[in-house]
Amino acid sequence: MALKMNAAELTAFLLAEFPQVADEFDITDLSAARLEVALRVGDKHLRPGGTVSGPSMFALADVAAYLHILSLIGPKALAVTTNCGIDFMRKPSAGVDLLCKNEVVKLGRSLAVCQSLIYSTDQTQPVARANLTYSIPRDG
Amino acid sequence: MALKMNAAELTAFLLAEFPQVADEFDITDLSAARLEVALRVGDKHLRPGGTVSGPSMFALADVAAYLHILSLIGPKALAVTTNCGIDFMRKPSAGVDLLCKNEVVKLGRSLAVCQSLIYSTDQTQPVARANLTYSIPRDG
Amino acid sequence: MALKMNAAELTAFLLAEFPQVADEFDITDLSAARLEVALRVGDKHLRPGGTVSGPSMFALADVAAYLHILSLIGPKALAVTTNCGIDFMRKPSAGVDLLCKNEVVKLGRSLAVCQSLIYSTDQTQPVARANLTYSIPRDG
Amino acid sequence: MALKMNAAELTAFLLAEFPQVADEFDITDLSAARLEVALRVGDKHLRPGGTVSGPSMFALADVAAYLHILSLIGPKALAVTTNCGIDFMRKPSAGVDLLCKNEVVKLGRSLAVCQSLIYSTDQTQPVARANLTYSIPRDG
Repeated sequence: MALKMNAAELTAFLLAEFPQVADEFDITDLSAARLEVALRVGDKHLRPGGTVSGPSMFALADVAAYLHILSLIGPKALAVTTNCGIDFMRKPSAGVDLLCKNEVVKLGRSLAVCQSLIYSTDQTQPVARANLTYSIPRDG
Repeated sequence: MALKMNAAELTAFLLAEFPQVADEFDITDLSAARLEVALRVGDKHLRPGGTVSGPSMFALADVAAYLHILSLIGPKALAVTTNCGIDFMRKPSAGVDLLCKNEVVKLGRSLAVCQSLIYSTDQTQPVARANLTYSIPRDG
Repeated sequence: MALKMNAAELTAFLLAEFPQVADEFDITDLSAARLEVALRVGDKHLRPGGTVSGPSMFALADVAAYLHILSLIGPKALAVTTNCGIDFMRKPSAGVDLLCKNEVVKLGRSLAVCQSLIYSTDQTQPVARANLTYSIPRDG
Repeated sequence: MALKMNAAELTAFLLAEFPQVADEFDITDLSAARLEVALRVGDKHLRPGGTVSGPSMFALADVAAYLHILSLIGPKALAVTTNCGIDFMRKPSAGVDLLCKNEVVKLGRSLAVCQSLIYSTDQTQPVARANLTYSIPRDG
């Protein structure tokens, strides 16, 4: 499957549409088979006890899935998250970036389904596992 | 089932343990059967298009479930979210607080399960549905 | 919201469309707010150790959600399950029927979302919690 | 990670513990990284319209995860499913076996987390995606 947006185009899109959060994320790899996005972990993502918050991991999985779908269908579509499941499996490291590896397992006309694993970049085992469903609007 | 912490004690606990986010949340009702928590929606919770972000709704459901479990088991336990499922069902209103109504459907020795509905306070139908599982550490 | 099918019509529909399993299920209560369906637990639903199998509980939650949606939209639509989440919380009793209490929390044009609690009829606490999403086909 | 049970031992275990369903499943590949199990699709797995039922796919994902965990921890443990999430993505082919490819993404002392993709053996794209959590009892 051919990409309709490359990493630079996705980054520009993120900056234009989500300026509040765009600087937290870095696309580190992109193909039809896999998108990798890093979360630059800062103070606002941390929780007492030295770990990254659950909402930060949710946000990372959501951005990864969203950008991957956009890379396949192009920028005009406004996909909306309809369902998300996450298993929090290990404690993320506090001062270390997170990396989300996303896969699009279904790209239908009205629904897309993604799954991803999230890693602390200093650990070999994933800290979380996520699945997300997006509703894709029909063209008008 | 008797409560081991009341709303004032939970609020003090939240302020002590999660100072970064405590002022975003207000406990508006508490019983063994139901905890209601409001998210004071501010600029940082918004998304372009005039809506509240998914991570903000996740954070609200997570706080509601966590506080409800603590109210039933007391402050010494350090419960950890292990699984979360959310359905995003309607678009939240942008300038309006969210209200999460949580129910503890299982309180076991090692796992607790909660479910909740999230409302924009100007809408009658829920904007999201969530379920969360917490792992409860054994006493040492 | 008015019902478009009553319990007798749903039972006839189940018998016509799903003859292999229709005799396992009994609609015991129906309103727009709640559908209750019993699973008549027989040998084929049991697992060693004296409990009801997970797939049997999944099937019960799926039938309950499906029939409830049909009662609200009528028999012509062919809704399809797209997502299901279940928490198995307690051990069901072996020789005892299960009762599923379902609620439709969203009924949109293209997606419907349900949640339910499943009880062994000799226990007061639920044995499982489920959420299901159905895709509703557009009219041709 | 070394296997504590091989495919023949898992098959014998399934036959001894779950005699009602053991003959429906075939382990076709096993390593620490991946377990593949086939469901021999028969009449009882079918639904009108020529497809395999949701409960049959749930049962397949559950057996795959269970056997994979057992292969890693050995036969003495009695793991119990606590949570399952499934996305039904495409229509399975009616007269064709299903193949489930499972991965254990966390194996902790008290919780194990698996994820899997399910294929109709005549299609290249997966028909379903599942994640399951098992509670592992502590030794007495």
